[in-house]
Amino acid sequence: MGIAVIATIRVKPGTAAEFEATFTALAQAVRANEPGNLVYQLTRSRTEADTYKVLEVYADEAAIAAHRDSAHFRGAGPALGAVLAGAPELELLDTVG
Amino acid sequence: MGIAVIATIRVKPGTAAEFEATFTALAQAVRANEPGNLVYQLTRSRTEADTYKVLEVYADEAAIAAHRDSAHFRGAGPALGAVLAGAPELELLDTVG
Repeated sequence: MGIAVIATIRVKPGTAAEFEATFTALAQAVRANEPGNLVYQLTRSRTEADTYKVLEVYADEAAIAAHRDSAHFRGAGPALGAVLAGAPELELLDTVG
Repeated sequence: MGIAVIATIRVKPGTAAEFEATFTALAQAVRANEPGNLVYQLTRSRTEADTYKVLEVYADEAAIAAHRDSAHFRGAGPALGAVLAGAPELELLDTVG
């Protein structure tokens, strides 16, 4: 089966628009270049300010490694790093069905 | 934009296989019958026993309503109710990009 990731991301106050633009571009690159990625969806919390959750599903461990090693993911690092309020919290789960 | 749901579900000890079979069939029906549903993925926690998270993405509120009113969702109610250890916890978020 596959692997899911829920990544909780908090951004610095006032940087939401910049973060969303950067991440949306990254998500487009992920969808276009990673056959092993099945879901890569940014979502915005309705209850916590400046808080996002990325819903991700990968076919297998190799697909996660390919994602992390990709030029588009690495390339987005500096711009994301500039607005993140801390390291993302990653929850890994196993997909069923 | 769309709407995402992270549904945390806990099942009674010893019912995981039954729950997974019931939910997998439900997920197949959702994917086959709900054009407004974009993601409906059951995942199993790696850290908490008998705990699952369903990653769901819908095009809009109408798609969520259609899901909740669907025969397949209502039809799975009794079988799911028999194995759930409590009401699911639902987190709604707004999709971005």
